[in-house]
Amino acid sequence: MDLEAASTPQADHRAEQRRRILSAAVLCFSREGFHGTSMQQICTEAGMSPGALYRYFPSKEAIIGAIVEGERAEKGQMFEELERAPSLIDALTEKLAEMLSPEADPCAKLGPEIMAEAIRNPRLRSALEPVEEETRAMLRTALVRAAGRGEIDARLDPDDLVVLLQVIGDGLVLHHLLHPDWDLTGRLPAFSALVRRMVAPRDMDPDRP
Amino acid sequence: MDLEAASTPQADHRAEQRRRILSAAVLCFSREGFHGTSMQQICTEAGMSPGALYRYFPSKEAIIGAIVEGERAEKGQMFEELERAPSLIDALTEKLAEMLSPEADPCAKLGPEIMAEAIRNPRLRSALEPVEEETRAMLRTALVRAAGRGEIDARLDPDDLVVLLQVIGDGLVLHHLLHPDWDLTGRLPAFSALVRRMVAPRDMDPDRP
Repeated sequence: MDLEAASTPQADHRAEQRRRILSAAVLCFSREGFHGTSMQQICTEAGMSPGALYRYFPSKEAIIGAIVEGERAEKGQMFEELERAPSLIDALTEKLAEMLSPEADPCAKLGPEIMAEAIRNPRLRSALEPVEEETRAMLRTALVRAAGRGEIDARLDPDDLVVLLQVIGDGLVLHHLLHPDWDLTGRLPAFSALVRRMVAPRDMDPDRP
Repeated sequence: MDLEAASTPQADHRAEQRRRILSAAVLCFSREGFHGTSMQQICTEAGMSPGALYRYFPSKEAIIGAIVEGERAEKGQMFEELERAPSLIDALTEKLAEMLSPEADPCAKLGPEIMAEAIRNPRLRSALEPVEEETRAMLRTALVRAAGRGEIDARLDPDDLVVLLQVIGDGLVLHHLLHPDWDLTGRLPAFSALVRRMVAPRDMDPDRP
């Protein structure tokens, strides 16, 4: 018997079940909030028994951890793209536009919910922290490179910039969800120009490479 | 009988009961989240019967509305102070430092929770919107005045700046609560200098009045 071939459908089944649970959980969390969603509701939404669900995830924190982990690979690829982009500010603006678009991954909309819950929930905070730390480290590297090629004023502290850019990104996603009638996407070029004023080397035309 | 004098203790009692409910609610919301808190839990925390509580507030949204309304008078006073301040950026930085300090009003810490819930809850959003709109209008007026006296580049769109400054303020409060070990208060002077670079008129020393 070919063990490898035999194990593949089983692994596929497990991966498919995990995906099913995670999609159900994202739906429930965005409807009822993390705190307002029970494991039972996720079972119902996924059409699974509690026994089956607990075989994959022991807790809601583990589910959020898996959602965040799923975005990790995507973020890694995003930062590879950012490194190849001629302008970091333009590339970050483009990524934000994608996150604010109606076609955005529904996980992106869970950000404010996850963060509000993480304030109260140290277990969830611990699950998020390694991924957040990795993102900050990648953004820091990209900022140092952009300073090296003259897009960013090399005298600015990259750690201050990492925090401030993350704050602006998270804040924009939050206000976009809070005010669906505001056209934040339309304002993105203006915000991008303001950030460029903030970080571009002084005594230099910010539009010149 | 002096009706006015007779009515005062009753009004005092009502005001005192309202305060008691609101403090209990702020405690419950920051512990369990808005969605995870029931009216019954607020009753228990306030040491009141449901009948007594519903005489003051018909719903959790009404309670949040009252919490936000309570901050309205305070915000009005804050903007009066901002108008008298010689520098808007310095004055806003000082207000942020107050909000991030351990002695801050516990209501200030509810911001991310209230916003995450408002994304899902249109009734809550409607309760918040007039107060938020008033805050934005006051900030806009302060920005236009600061542009008039040369602190802010008059060619920048004040509506873009209102949104971006609000996004930065909300984002900083969020990350301060999310990362209690980060010294964001220590970074405030750096963030303030970055915002000044962003908004100060070009070809002008930002440290000169």
